[in-house]
Amino acid sequence: MVRAMVITLLSDFGDLYPASMKGVILGIAPDANIVDISHSIPAQDVLAGAFMLAASAKYFPPGTVHIAVVDPGVGTKRRAIAIRAESKNNVIHYFIGPDNGLLIPAAGSIGDFQVFEITNKILYRDADVSATFHGRDIFAPAGAHISKGFEIENVGGQIKDFVALDFGKARRFKDSIEGSIIFIDTFGNIITNIHSEIVDYRPGDVLDIWNERIVFQSSYGLSGEGEPLALIGSHSYLEIAVNRGSAAQFFNKKQGDGLLIKT
Amino acid sequence: MVRAMVITLLSDFGDLYPASMKGVILGIAPDANIVDISHSIPAQDVLAGAFMLAASAKYFPPGTVHIAVVDPGVGTKRRAIAIRAESKNNVIHYFIGPDNGLLIPAAGSIGDFQVFEITNKILYRDADVSATFHGRDIFAPAGAHISKGFEIENVGGQIKDFVALDFGKARRFKDSIEGSIIFIDTFGNIITNIHSEIVDYRPGDVLDIWNERIVFQSSYGLSGEGEPLALIGSHSYLEIAVNRGSAAQFFNKKQGDGLLIKT
Amino acid sequence: MVRAMVITLLSDFGDLYPASMKGVILGIAPDANIVDISHSIPAQDVLAGAFMLAASAKYFPPGTVHIAVVDPGVGTKRRAIAIRAESKNNVIHYFIGPDNGLLIPAAGSIGDFQVFEITNKILYRDADVSATFHGRDIFAPAGAHISKGFEIENVGGQIKDFVALDFGKARRFKDSIEGSIIFIDTFGNIITNIHSEIVDYRPGDVLDIWNERIVFQSSYGLSGEGEPLALIGSHSYLEIAVNRGSAAQFFNKKQGDGLLIKT
Repeated sequence: MVRAMVITLLSDFGDLYPASMKGVILGIAPDANIVDISHSIPAQDVLAGAFMLAASAKYFPPGTVHIAVVDPGVGTKRRAIAIRAESKNNVIHYFIGPDNGLLIPAAGSIGDFQVFEITNKILYRDADVSATFHGRDIFAPAGAHISKGFEIENVGGQIKDFVALDFGKARRFKDSIEGSIIFIDTFGNIITNIHSEIVDYRPGDVLDIWNERIVFQSSYGLSGEGEPLALIGSHSYLEIAVNRGSAAQFFNKKQGDGLLIKT
Repeated sequence: MVRAMVITLLSDFGDLYPASMKGVILGIAPDANIVDISHSIPAQDVLAGAFMLAASAKYFPPGTVHIAVVDPGVGTKRRAIAIRAESKNNVIHYFIGPDNGLLIPAAGSIGDFQVFEITNKILYRDADVSATFHGRDIFAPAGAHISKGFEIENVGGQIKDFVALDFGKARRFKDSIEGSIIFIDTFGNIITNIHSEIVDYRPGDVLDIWNERIVFQSSYGLSGEGEPLALIGSHSYLEIAVNRGSAAQFFNKKQGDGLLIKT
Repeated sequence: MVRAMVITLLSDFGDLYPASMKGVILGIAPDANIVDISHSIPAQDVLAGAFMLAASAKYFPPGTVHIAVVDPGVGTKRRAIAIRAESKNNVIHYFIGPDNGLLIPAAGSIGDFQVFEITNKILYRDADVSATFHGRDIFAPAGAHISKGFEIENVGGQIKDFVALDFGKARRFKDSIEGSIIFIDTFGNIITNIHSEIVDYRPGDVLDIWNERIVFQSSYGLSGEGEPLALIGSHSYLEIAVNRGSAAQFFNKKQGDGLLIKT
């Protein structure tokens, strides 16, 4: 079987730092197809990074290695980890990054997963690892080696006490749903942690959210311009949007805020 | 003949959404060389997207598939289309996206073109197409399949009543030219719809634009720092610029505004 | 030996213009692996571009061709150059761009280098070179040809009077070090021109910088949240940072400003 050799990168680095990670990867795995998921995660926002990784990873081909670095604890005692996640139909993805929860929702979106601490210095860029840029000096070379077939069992010992992270559980009551905002996208669409599985609204239903009466629709363009709407977005979560506008501005809401939907 | 297998992407997605499109493409066409034209089109600005696609597409190799998504009508009845455009010397490019005019100037920049409605569900990512993200669920897989050789005639029926779009026609009078602003680039250069073919100014000519006396030059660096100038830009259109500054700020102008040039 | 065929791009173009450079490159070198270092250099900021190129180039594989365009003098008499730089252990990198100093620190970061003026019109995209976009019409095709094995001696004559550029020399006194700010990164970390070689502070040492008492640490996360610290960053230069904050905002400093460190 031909390995896909796709390596994705996600970070809060903005500019400058992703390039040296790519250089290091291509030095080890010249045929790697490197895809940026994002380097615009808000600085040190592990939760936002975890959401974007979880929202994207599962669309990549089997064998993809995902390297993610949102890492406020770099240079402290936080561990470096590598994860193998496997779906029910045996699709495997790898995740490399800091042990701060960043990788966990994405690994779970694939299926069951095992976590290994990266301690094998063969994987390091060189003996002289910087204390401030493990993306370049540990995660990039480790990911490149795994992409080339290095066995994940050999990166270091398996660990069970890795740092977990989730987006909170939305709760469904008789006449309402209570949840919170996971993420606000570039359009200003508000993505909640209310999964489509617990939503049974139908197009045309009117919802009461944040003191506004909002119509539940199947897509953005079905409300009047500038009007808010609710819908199940492409991530399978309930979203609040404004047709051709920004719901985050309209409602003045931000990541982490709660919402209560009444009908 | 070896196919080039280049796939370009253009959207107003900013962050997050391009990554899953790339994952879907690489799952179908692992050897595709994916190039981002831009994901920073202003939200829902079909005209700006059409300009950037038309300004870029023709520089790519024969056989390139261009997937573009600026799509305020997603989930409504707007159609999905695929276009084959062919130049006089038989260079073929493909364009995939919504039927809202976005693809038309770029297709025309290659040569004659035929438009097909995408209705063949074989091309869809899976049976369960989202109502909000056709970029991931229809355009990306359709483009990947076409890049691998899927015949465009088989995506669906040819249509003639596609939505057209152009940048307006500049008009040349005896002593003046009247046009409008198509696009403002990152530097603040004002790109007009006045094509070099109807311009016969020479370096050193002084033009009267927006109540300023502006020298026509051959390049940006030939005026004094902070001084406005006019020139034929790299898109073959007349541009208004400010050496080491932003003409859009200097003149307080935006896309769509008109201009009248007198000599 | 298999050539790596990696081509990096760096510019102040923001959007739009990098895409046509990539199209031109892929038309000449279809197998090129194009990696963006950055297109977000502040407009016409040759010094910032030179720093980012010098900070990134050396991490790429042997044979990499680096095309960089921060070019306020485009269309004037400034020359186009190609550089071959070779390290002590015979690793070769190529650099293509304007003769304004942009490429020089990066070339020096590899090792000894030779500079050639690009005058061979075989390398131009076509006879009709634009006066405003040498990135697309000269640098991209020249870089693509060199990546495919075109001998650099054939681009034009070797020159010795190229424009030089450096980041200034920090000076070490008995009880202090005087330097200046080279670059401020996305996090707001202040990167100085004080190289680790002239620094002998130890973690825990307290420094006096800009009227603040700052602890020297080994990594960002070792100070309290919101507290400033000094450290040797991943570029091997002394940095001033704020844990989970922006040092540039904290100290209200910008590129070019000086600093005096006392103990």
